[in-house]
Amino acid sequence: MVKKRGENTSKKIFEFAEGIVEQIKEEKKPKMKIPVRSLSNVEWSEDKGVLTLGNKKSNRYFFNVGHARKFMQTLLIASFCKDIVDENIHASIRDMYYNLKHSIGDSKENTFEEQSESDPLIVDIETALNLLREQLHLLADRKGVVVGNVKVRDRGDVIDWSKLGSGGWSIPSVVEDIEFVDVDADFALVIEKNAGFERLHEDKFWRDYNCILMGTGGQPARGTRRLIRRLAEEHKIPIYVLTDSDSYGWYIYSVIKSGSMALAHASDKLATPSAKFIGLTITDIMEYKLEKSIIRANDRDIKRAKEMLDYPWFQEKEWRRELKLMIDKRIKAEIEALSSRGLKFLTDTYLPEKLDKKEFLP
Amino acid sequence: MVKKRGENTSKKIFEFAEGIVEQIKEEKKPKMKIPVRSLSNVEWSEDKGVLTLGNKKSNRYFFNVGHARKFMQTLLIASFCKDIVDENIHASIRDMYYNLKHSIGDSKENTFEEQSESDPLIVDIETALNLLREQLHLLADRKGVVVGNVKVRDRGDVIDWSKLGSGGWSIPSVVEDIEFVDVDADFALVIEKNAGFERLHEDKFWRDYNCILMGTGGQPARGTRRLIRRLAEEHKIPIYVLTDSDSYGWYIYSVIKSGSMALAHASDKLATPSAKFIGLTITDIMEYKLEKSIIRANDRDIKRAKEMLDYPWFQEKEWRRELKLMIDKRIKAEIEALSSRGLKFLTDTYLPEKLDKKEFLP
Repeated sequence: MVKKRGENTSKKIFEFAEGIVEQIKEEKKPKMKIPVRSLSNVEWSEDKGVLTLGNKKSNRYFFNVGHARKFMQTLLIASFCKDIVDENIHASIRDMYYNLKHSIGDSKENTFEEQSESDPLIVDIETALNLLREQLHLLADRKGVVVGNVKVRDRGDVIDWSKLGSGGWSIPSVVEDIEFVDVDADFALVIEKNAGFERLHEDKFWRDYNCILMGTGGQPARGTRRLIRRLAEEHKIPIYVLTDSDSYGWYIYSVIKSGSMALAHASDKLATPSAKFIGLTITDIMEYKLEKSIIRANDRDIKRAKEMLDYPWFQEKEWRRELKLMIDKRIKAEIEALSSRGLKFLTDTYLPEKLDKKEFLP
Repeated sequence: MVKKRGENTSKKIFEFAEGIVEQIKEEKKPKMKIPVRSLSNVEWSEDKGVLTLGNKKSNRYFFNVGHARKFMQTLLIASFCKDIVDENIHASIRDMYYNLKHSIGDSKENTFEEQSESDPLIVDIETALNLLREQLHLLADRKGVVVGNVKVRDRGDVIDWSKLGSGGWSIPSVVEDIEFVDVDADFALVIEKNAGFERLHEDKFWRDYNCILMGTGGQPARGTRRLIRRLAEEHKIPIYVLTDSDSYGWYIYSVIKSGSMALAHASDKLATPSAKFIGLTITDIMEYKLEKSIIRANDRDIKRAKEMLDYPWFQEKEWRRELKLMIDKRIKAEIEALSSRGLKFLTDTYLPEKLDKKEFLP
């Protein structure tokens, strides 16, 4: 399966390059078509419940002084990716940058000066060839940890997520080739904060509630988002997300559920439209008597909340209510605020009540 | 063993509080003795090869308007820690802050206003009672990942670090109670960058060289530092550290080896004086022809390097040479720079040569 996927990627890159060779043979000016990735081409798909990339494309010409450098760089990166895919190894995007940086011929011109030149071109190739970064064998940063009654097979090892002591399985940056051997869970709880993960892990919450417990450590890495999607899609696991009660926490939830603007082209692989929000809300602050632990929202928080009121994917009345409450009261709260009611309040009261009443936001 | 350690901590806190009750009964002004933690009281122990805290102490009085609030807060924290130790649960320092924050009696005065008030008092208690944060059951952030031919027992599970696929074991924030069941490794390679960890993990470096591979993701968390120390101390595993070639990378090495100024009181548990530095050095840049991949050092880098020239624990001639080279040439390089010589250059050439020649810095 791994082999086959690699062959497909390799073939796509080869055909992309072949197309350019054809143009040269036909004595045409070489060009490549790259999907536009600016906000003007990001669309909200009501249907799929995710952000997607529209159909606008732009041409990149070799015989255009404004395009030539990027044209050359795009081909260098495509060639690099084909090599590592064929060799079946992976590289970080920084490794790639260093590997490709060299002076051109006898000139003093370098192929790349900064990694900021190569990074966006990777996404160009992803979108132009409809391939994910993971399929190009490029690594994103590793972040995220998981425990639960699940066994997976990865590089020949069977890993039991329920037998990892006080640690957990560090989620790799590419989870594409992981095979689920056994998934026994009623739902997955995805929690933004490491401290909350530790609390629930120590309290054996995942054992008592037969769930998968996943800590993202802030905005989840691509590997973590892909793993959530695969659990939801392939094993019909309901996904519940727990974040701080503020615009930033809620945005993390929306990225898990609907994808992000920057990665709109990858929503079909990374977003999980079935995900639901378990907390925290501004309403929770009153409901659970957390007033002592609120934090005053700053201008940045409020600005973010106002922007989100305009997003098509935050139009459900429950979300509009929460965003408006936050803006009107100028307050926010962290998951840890629940500790003011007792260290185990999250484990013993808050989550059980939410789960029991099925009190989720869409 | 866990039980016994908890009892000792609990007893120490109880005696600390009892001492204050005694003072009150004797109608003395209640005071507590707290070790001074400013730089003036941090000492370099040539002997042990670590930073340690000196003997200076200051008194904190209850009947002193400048001390009273801190006096009260210190006792609140001590009491909180005794409770969680007795209950055998852990808490993050943020959870603790929220849990302890409340208004005092009918006043509008809060016990704590910001976490920045409670954090330093935790260290006061650590130093006053000669206990580590981990023994107080307070959690630091979880960071760091490990693989290798090692089996550990943790909360009843046996975890085999060699059977974790492309992931690894996410190192918990408290590794005190972890039992080493089987340690089969010739050395441990500690690497600052996640990308380098992934590279070596994919290339099966740890299998080919029978070593433990540990990724710290920047400055290592306390749990990771403690794990390194335990491997070196209890299993005589040689520790080799790989960082970027610049003052910040080298400082990470020195924290692993000699401890940090902020945690000088904990060096006996967290520092590993036997650790050696495998790379990268400025000399490596010339040696391995990485000139194309150097980065110009900025003023901050140079300032840091100059400060380090003054540290007693950077006085070996090899280190003075590297620091001076960096300052004179105003250059630095990242681990990833080795990728300019080929993606597997780190795995197949750089590390094998260093290990073969035993080319380490002290």
